[in-house]
Parts: sequence; structure tokens; C-alpha cells
Amino acid sequence: MQVQLSHLDTPCLHINAEAMERNLQEMAHVAADAGVALRPHVKTHKSPSLALRQLEYGARGITVAKIGEADVMADAGIKDIRIAYPIVGAEKLARLAKLMDRADVSISIDSVDAARGLSELGQSRKKRIPVLLKINTGLDRVGVTPPEALSIGKGIAALPGVELVGILTHEGHALHEATLDGAKRAAREAGKAMVDLAEELRKAGLNIKEVSVGSTATARAIAYVPGVTEIRPGTYIFNDLNEWTIGVATEETCALTVLVTVVSIPAENRAVIDAGSKTLTSDLLGPPTGKKGYGYVKGHPDVTIARLTEEHGMLEVKDARKRFKIGQHLEIVPNHVCPVVNLADVMYLMRNGQCERQIDVLARGKNR
Amino acid sequence: MQVQLSHLDTPCLHINAEAMERNLQEMAHVAADAGVALRPHVKTHKSPSLALRQLEYGARGITVAKIGEADVMADAGIKDIRIAYPIVGAEKLARLAKLMDRADVSISIDSVDAARGLSELGQSRKKRIPVLLKINTGLDRVGVTPPEALSIGKGIAALPGVELVGILTHEGHALHEATLDGAKRAAREAGKAMVDLAEELRKAGLNIKEVSVGSTATARAIAYVPGVTEIRPGTYIFNDLNEWTIGVATEETCALTVLVTVVSIPAENRAVIDAGSKTLTSDLLGPPTGKKGYGYVKGHPDVTIARLTEEHGMLEVKDARKRFKIGQHLEIVPNHVCPVVNLADVMYLMRNGQCERQIDVLARGKNR
Repeated sequence: MQVQLSHLDTPCLHINAEAMERNLQEMAHVAADAGVALRPHVKTHKSPSLALRQLEYGARGITVAKIGEADVMADAGIKDIRIAYPIVGAEKLARLAKLMDRADVSISIDSVDAARGLSELGQSRKKRIPVLLKINTGLDRVGVTPPEALSIGKGIAALPGVELVGILTHEGHALHEATLDGAKRAAREAGKAMVDLAEELRKAGLNIKEVSVGSTATARAIAYVPGVTEIRPGTYIFNDLNEWTIGVATEETCALTVLVTVVSIPAENRAVIDAGSKTLTSDLLGPPTGKKGYGYVKGHPDVTIARLTEEHGMLEVKDARKRFKIGQHLEIVPNHVCPVVNLADVMYLMRNGQCERQIDVLARGKNR
Repeated sequence: MQVQLSHLDTPCLHINAEAMERNLQEMAHVAADAGVALRPHVKTHKSPSLALRQLEYGARGITVAKIGEADVMADAGIKDIRIAYPIVGAEKLARLAKLMDRADVSISIDSVDAARGLSELGQSRKKRIPVLLKINTGLDRVGVTPPEALSIGKGIAALPGVELVGILTHEGHALHEATLDGAKRAAREAGKAMVDLAEELRKAGLNIKEVSVGSTATARAIAYVPGVTEIRPGTYIFNDLNEWTIGVATEETCALTVLVTVVSIPAENRAVIDAGSKTLTSDLLGPPTGKKGYGYVKGHPDVTIARLTEEHGMLEVKDARKRFKIGQHLEIVPNHVCPVVNLADVMYLMRNGQCERQIDVLARGKNR
């Protein structure tokens, strides 16, 4: 029988409630100030209670990647759900149909092929499913390039059962810039390219109402590009070492830490914690940072989490036996918080050093 | 409401039942042939039903890293559980006490400090908890070095409430060798060092009954070192691209694949699958291989899974639009199967192309 674990049983995730609330407030302010809608990506927290908190802060709706995430959010009564992911295949379309019974769903797509499945579903339900054309502004992941957008956009708009309502991008390539200024410039360029493209599509007769852009790191720059209508940041609720290293977060705004225990100090230059890749993930910091290691040990800036195996984290540290004790707790700011949360069943909401409540990561593992 | 998903709703994990059974049989044969006990590490499958299958194949007991894994296995009636991990702190000791009510637990430790907690627990229960001294034979993770073993072993043996029954190592450093022959030689050297150390400790009066060693990649070499009493391989049940690349597995013995769907072909040189780091993990292949990418696409040896974001996998491929279709399924052999399974709630046991049953990954996420 599984006992209820405590917030001191490590490794586990602690959320600093005050820091999280400030993060939510700040991004809501950015969106309001820039006059754009805020549609947070819930991939970061995967928790309906936190999505509801984002809506209380004025978010128009939420963004998800997978139908499984949307199902969990719809279970909590969230109605306005954008799936920023191509929906492909009979299984997915059947599940989407059920989701549409209880939520207002819009979907991003990047091909007429993928749009056809949605078109058939829309026709069978005698409605037009709102879709946004995904644009590749430089990340080279999914999405059509701006020169391809008109012909594919027209192809989608011509289909019955779907309504092309906008264009959408994730300007994640901005993070490949070496400096924050460079990232902001790249983000603004992406925003401008999106707005220009929307105008071009409108001139060609497409009714592009929305210009939706993404990313915590770029939101504060791209939201102010005139013509952008929506931002979809995700990580901002917690931030992480990536955002901190880029310069859009600080130690104080990193609201989620991993509480770990030193379980072994087998050498003078090595201490071992009870969190490995099954807790912290193997995600490294983004390429431009040049920084190594698997997270930041709070209070110990000279210590590197040099290696991980599945359940062990190896700290490189001078005078390990003087510095640490077996059984000591440490707090780690993870490199990339989203996949770390996705490994946890629960997070603990901490306020003034006390555990206020447990937050269930109900959409954890919902990758389908 | 969550619908029951099918084995064709991607991304999901497929187990080739025949390949898995052959893998189980082969390692059972190695152990029997070498005259050592087999105590599989269940970190790979995290599924009680598969642990029970390993016991049916003659395993003496199981190995786990965390108490949470042990709890799940004990729930399934498994009695002989070795925790190859230092148990540190009040929360863990309280949970260990409950676990000991229903299973025979032995524990590996590498310090007198960690042994003291176990000693108090053992005394309070008027029994001696079996412990094994963890030895660092070269991996430089946890464990004492052979020269330190005698004094620490004596310190542990002198404590009431614990019984030092053996020594234990994980010779994972053997995988840093450039060749399989090199890895086997390093494994045999580690085995010999363990046997020699056991003899030295015995001469000094310690009652070392067990010499336990680990690892799928090294088991077939180290099991035959005279004096070794137990092997603890984990990955062998499924194998993965790491084991295949090292040379101890083949495509045919890689029993677990990730079924994915091509969701976008946005460029002639790129196809995108619906599995990213939240499915395949960011684990790369071990350093000596020099190979890149995030898994092997079956039937497409020239295709590289070049980049992952959380829910996208970017395939580098020539003539992507001729080669693949949107909606097409692909099967991927993951780099490192253990953390991949740890991201899944279920696996599908496939036989002759049919889904025989769903296997719940009940110890998924049990990192505490």
C-alpha cells in the first residue's frame, strides 16, 4: 500500500507560492499592457488548479500540445482550449470529437492533409472547427514558411468544416541568440514577419483574425509588436535555469525547486543526491549559454551537478565532507522545468516555509 | 473524462512479447550456467507483472532503487527485495519500516552514517537488517573504494540492528570502454576486484556471504568470475539502442519500441513525429559510441532523430515527402529504455501484431 508522502520526502517539487503568484501577475500585466490576449501553455504545470489560477489572472483560455492534456483541463471545466499541435489519425480525431462535446477547441495545423481530417470531423458535426495555420518563423520544427503560407492557407480555407481564423508561431529560435538583446530582436522580427504575413493573407481574401505567438523568453518583446493579438508563454509560471541564464528570470522568480537529499559523500570532491535523470531529466541548458550541469544548487553557486544516472546526481564540490552532510536537504533550480514537472505526480505549494497544499500534476504523462 | 486509449494511439510503447521472453530466458540461462543468483533490477520495466515473470524465470528476488518501487512490488506479493540505494532520513526510514512488515528487505549502503539509521530501525524491531556494502569499482557514483572498505565495513558490522551480509557494486564504468571486448575485460576486472575484496574482508573477520554485481552489458562476462554470487541486470528485459550499439543486443532483441506518428513534413529534409523529450527523453547514447540522435527509426537506418522538443521529434531525412506520409506510423528503438518507460503509464504487449494486453507501469515515477 502506498502511503501518502510528505513534502519533506525527497526528491520532490516545491513551488514558492509568492514567487509563482508574482510571475502570473507580471505576465498578465505584460499582456494587458500590450493589449494582447494571454493564452498560457499548460505544458509547464500540467495542473488544472494552476490553469484555473491563470484564467483568474485574466488569461483568455489555455494552450495545450496534446488532446490528453486538453481532456484533463476540460475535466476541470476549462472551456477555451487551443491545441497547438497537428491532430492526425483516426484515434486522435475520435478523441477530439469527444473533447469538442465539452470544450471550445481550436487547433493549429500546417498542412492541407492534416486539415482534411478536421474538415471531415467538422462536417460530421455540422460546424466549422477553428484552425490556425502554423508558421515556421525560424525554429524549423513544424509550420509552413511564410512564402508557402498563402497557398496552404487558401487550401485549408477552401475546406468545409474548418474555419481558418488565424496564424500561429512559436519563435523558439530566438533563444539560439547569444544575448538577451539578440533574442528580443529575433522575437520582434518574428512578430513583425507574422503581422506582415497576416496582412498579406488578408489582402488575398483570407479572414486572419488572430496572430498568435509564443514563448516565455520572448513574450515581453513580441507582445508589443503592433498586430500581434495573443501570446502563449508557458514556463513563466515557474521559470527555470534556462530562463534565468537567458536573462528573463532571476533566482527569486524561479518559483519551482527540486528538494533533494544528500545520500552519499563518497569522496572529498563528490556528494551524491537522490535525484537523477528520472527526476531532473537529462535536459541541458540551451546551446548559447555554454553552461554545464543539470541544475543550480541554491546557496552553492560553485557546485556543479556534473553527472546524472537515473536516480543519482553527482555534485562536483571541493571539500565535500566539510561542506555537506549525509541527510542534508538541498534545493535545486532545474535546467528545464517543464519535463521535470512531467516526471512528478505531485508538487507541494509552499508558503512561508509551510506546505499549504499538494497540487496533483493530473496531466503528467498525457503525451497522446 | 479520460477514455481508454488504444495501442495505436501514439506515442505509445510496444513490447514484442516473443523478444522479451527470449531476453528473460537468455539471462536466466546465463545466471544458471554461471551458477550465480539472478536478481533483476526492476527500474527498467517498473511493472509488477513483469517482475513476477522474472521470478518465474528463476530470479531469486528483485532489485529496486527506491522504496516507492519496492512498495509497488510488495503490493504484488513480491517478498525478496533488495534496495540498491542508500536509505537516508526519517521519512525514508519510516516507510522502510512499513515495507519490512510485508517483504524481506536488504539494503546497500556506503557509510556508517547511513547505517546508523538502519541500525536504530533494526534494533527497534528486534532484528538485524541485512545490508551490503556498496563498492565503487570505477563508476565513481556512490560506494566506498576497495581500500576504504575494511574500515567502513567493520564500522557497519559493529552496529547492532544490522547484519553486513555482502558487498555490492554496479560496474557501469565498463561501458565507458570503446569496445565490447574492453567492456568485458573491465567487467571481469571489477568482478575480480570484488571477489578479492570479499576475501580480504572475510580474512579480517567479516562474514561476507554475497558478492553482488550488476549491469546488462557486463552480466555475461562478470557472472563467470569465480566468487561472484549474484548479478543484477535490468535493461536486458527490453534492451535498447545503447545495448545494441555496445554490441550486447541486436535489433531483434530490442523488445520495446515507441510507436509514433508522422504529424508534419514541413520541408524536403524534415519529417516531424509526435514524440519528443516527454516521450523519448533527452538521453543520448553513451560517450564511446559517438553516435548522435534520439533513437533508431526501424526500417530507416539512414534517418536521424536529430532534435527533440518536448512533444516533437525532428527527423533528418532526404526526400522526406517521398519517403513518409503524414499519419504514417514509425517504430523507434529508444536510446535508453529505462527512463522512457518511466514516462509511460502503460505499455502494450504485442504478439504476432496483435495487442495481447496492456501492462500498467505501476512504479512509474516512484522516485522516492
